[in-house]
Amino acid sequence: MPEEKSFHMSPDDFRRHGHAMVDWITDYFTRIESFPVLSRVEPGQLRASLPSDPPAKGEPFDTILQDVEKLILPGITHWQSPNFYAYFPCNASGPAILGDLLSSGLGVQGMLWATSPACTELETHVLDWLVAMLDLPRKFLSTKSGGGVILDTASSASLCALLAARERATNFVSNQRGCDRTLVAYTSSQAHSSIEKDVQIAGLGRQNLRLIAVDEKFAMRPEALARQIEQDRRAGVVPCFVCATIGTTSSNAIDPVPEIGRICREQKIWLHVDAAMSGTAALCPELRHIHDGLEFADSYTFNPHKWMFTNFDCNCFYVADRKALIQTLSVLPEYLRNRATETGAVIDYRDWQIPLGRRFRSLKLWFVIRHYGIEGLQYHIRRHVELAQQFAEWVWKDHRFELAAPAPLNLVCFRHKGGDEVNQSLMDRLNRSGDLYLTHTRLNDRLTLRLCVGQANTTARHVERAWQRIQEEAANAI
Amino acid sequence: MPEEKSFHMSPDDFRRHGHAMVDWITDYFTRIESFPVLSRVEPGQLRASLPSDPPAKGEPFDTILQDVEKLILPGITHWQSPNFYAYFPCNASGPAILGDLLSSGLGVQGMLWATSPACTELETHVLDWLVAMLDLPRKFLSTKSGGGVILDTASSASLCALLAARERATNFVSNQRGCDRTLVAYTSSQAHSSIEKDVQIAGLGRQNLRLIAVDEKFAMRPEALARQIEQDRRAGVVPCFVCATIGTTSSNAIDPVPEIGRICREQKIWLHVDAAMSGTAALCPELRHIHDGLEFADSYTFNPHKWMFTNFDCNCFYVADRKALIQTLSVLPEYLRNRATETGAVIDYRDWQIPLGRRFRSLKLWFVIRHYGIEGLQYHIRRHVELAQQFAEWVWKDHRFELAAPAPLNLVCFRHKGGDEVNQSLMDRLNRSGDLYLTHTRLNDRLTLRLCVGQANTTARHVERAWQRIQEEAANAI
Repeated sequence: MPEEKSFHMSPDDFRRHGHAMVDWITDYFTRIESFPVLSRVEPGQLRASLPSDPPAKGEPFDTILQDVEKLILPGITHWQSPNFYAYFPCNASGPAILGDLLSSGLGVQGMLWATSPACTELETHVLDWLVAMLDLPRKFLSTKSGGGVILDTASSASLCALLAARERATNFVSNQRGCDRTLVAYTSSQAHSSIEKDVQIAGLGRQNLRLIAVDEKFAMRPEALARQIEQDRRAGVVPCFVCATIGTTSSNAIDPVPEIGRICREQKIWLHVDAAMSGTAALCPELRHIHDGLEFADSYTFNPHKWMFTNFDCNCFYVADRKALIQTLSVLPEYLRNRATETGAVIDYRDWQIPLGRRFRSLKLWFVIRHYGIEGLQYHIRRHVELAQQFAEWVWKDHRFELAAPAPLNLVCFRHKGGDEVNQSLMDRLNRSGDLYLTHTRLNDRLTLRLCVGQANTTARHVERAWQRIQEEAANAI
Repeated sequence: MPEEKSFHMSPDDFRRHGHAMVDWITDYFTRIESFPVLSRVEPGQLRASLPSDPPAKGEPFDTILQDVEKLILPGITHWQSPNFYAYFPCNASGPAILGDLLSSGLGVQGMLWATSPACTELETHVLDWLVAMLDLPRKFLSTKSGGGVILDTASSASLCALLAARERATNFVSNQRGCDRTLVAYTSSQAHSSIEKDVQIAGLGRQNLRLIAVDEKFAMRPEALARQIEQDRRAGVVPCFVCATIGTTSSNAIDPVPEIGRICREQKIWLHVDAAMSGTAALCPELRHIHDGLEFADSYTFNPHKWMFTNFDCNCFYVADRKALIQTLSVLPEYLRNRATETGAVIDYRDWQIPLGRRFRSLKLWFVIRHYGIEGLQYHIRRHVELAQQFAEWVWKDHRFELAAPAPLNLVCFRHKGGDEVNQSLMDRLNRSGDLYLTHTRLNDRLTLRLCVGQANTTARHVERAWQRIQEEAANAI
């Protein structure tokens, strides 16, 4: 055979460039507050600066890294800035980034236990730890009837839950024959848009999703849910799935899960509970009341990649009855058959998710939990809640502003009393200034600003400065 | 406000531990051949070695890293070993790992253009580069009617394609009302199991997936497809989706896309082409014939995370008509509205995928393409194909063995002539030895061994050694 050439990065070069990349990221963290939080580039600006043709020959790593600094950085909206208050956070931390780096380096596939046993077992173990850490019902433990899995996002978790609900409601016939009966799903009018998307994907049809009315706190009205279910039963369609939200995206409203749960149990409807951001708060015993009623849930999900210092993607999805989920999602071709699977003694996580392939994501979660310990996680979650509560108090005391919804945790919904135009202008000025980034929603059909405290490094001085800037721009906005 | 404590990893500590992690990975690469490729742990072994309770207090990073070495490493099946020939590869490389590290460090969300413009624009740009690099039809360019997006896996790509096909076939009514007509999908009996799973997820029902017969090369018979479609039309059901495979998982069979494509065009059926592993071969002009007929395809997918040195996850999914995809998957709640979206001048990739959130995955692909250049990528792909062809020749020349299918690229399907038991025993001995790892399939109902050359660092000496070990164990297996 001919002599081998190699275009691969040598181990020595990997070490050198790897150190340089770690240094660049360290440097990025230390100067992150110097950048405008919201990127100021125009559409097409980055593309115009990139060569239209791919490189015929390889380029030095240093050149690539220079382009990161020069071309990529201006196009970044800095989600890891302590002045980022938009949407829900997607926070990260040193241990998470290094756990994820290890996952990239090992480069294993966790689709089957056999394809890398540590990938499956560490995931099961850490997800059982989290049952204890959040004081979730024990039925969600892998050692009981249920278990947890890491998915990419809460959207995928709710899709998996909906599919299992669809199958349970049809005796697993929908998988075989398609949806030949009209199945109905329920969530509040304030639930995440992914529920609507999931209902479309799963073939139920958007018109078979009932958006249940909410109360003055934007939480689902259980009596409206009960009424709608009754009406649907009378109409001869099949209620199969309810999604309750703990911390809605718009306003962090907490649906009354105990009441909703009792209805679901009585009606034999799958109850999924979406606590994407807010679930993390249950690390703190004094905030655990948000999980009241979880004993009724068939499935539950929260995202360590939102508020638990674990970089994206890391969604934790729990089911009370793993058999229903596995029966819904399992397809076993010959080329995946193996002894370990056939013994039944192992978990094959490919049967717990939409895709087949899967990354070793539990490493970063394990690193985070071990680095911070429960104590460290609790400290930072408590601080975020305190800071948001302090901010809400400042808003409440300022006669120009009003709170638009209760602020149970770390999200404050507020508005200037001057109306939609003033609020739009206020938000635009603040975001354009680069000093902070916040986003909006509509509550009671009025434009409402949202300030969510969840970035890992946000401290008192950042929130104080945010309020100061809001006050300054409020004076200008009128 | 009280003085702030912090449990975060300081920038200095991140730099130090980051260097240590890079060093560990470098070291892992240099000693990777010293480990048994297939992990030897027993079910439950890792879990038994981990504390049953999560840590109350944080632990030093060095302790965690020691546990990686001591506890995790024995449970790893080494997908990055040059002696890994199982399944399809999931290869990685230095530049990919460092691009992914940068993505973790920046920690941005790319769900909307506005949430980090560089994340969207680099992705669009690199996916347009790949159209040129693989010489794909120009309709897949973002500057034409189509465009590409990075998803997690080919399973998700085919699900998105199927959903768009379902909607196109029903005038976008299924999203609204659910599947109230019987829709039928087609693929070969050798297609990936994810197609069956997708059909279930999308609510079509498994019995409405037709597994079309294959020829002696395990490629779909177009005349059987045409016949089945005709039969289904007569029965009053709606053919909506055909998935052709370029490089099946079992045997790397290449469906006759030109013939299949003509049928789909005539019948107005969505044609999706799955080239998950093999698509990468089209980097080399002399191998580009595998893509013959792509001009008929409505969508196309391949995985740089399989064979293009880009660590998981990185699937490239192209559509010819992006409007159909976006109309299928778009749901726009108030809290995601923004000026850039409203101008229509930008891409919001959340409408091209199942989940909402998305990672900055194009960085690693950009790093890979720039590090290797087209020249470097072509060199290594050609070498892999040459090595597999050499191996096939050795098999062919050994009277004890036979080739079980054509080997068009880098996968060789072969078997010992002694029958299933001998082959099972041969595979078990080889895998238990730790010297290499290969997996099986069934072709013509006979156990068949698969040797896939695709790990980045596999060179002639590894394949020679693999053949030597196979010969040795064949002598023992009888």
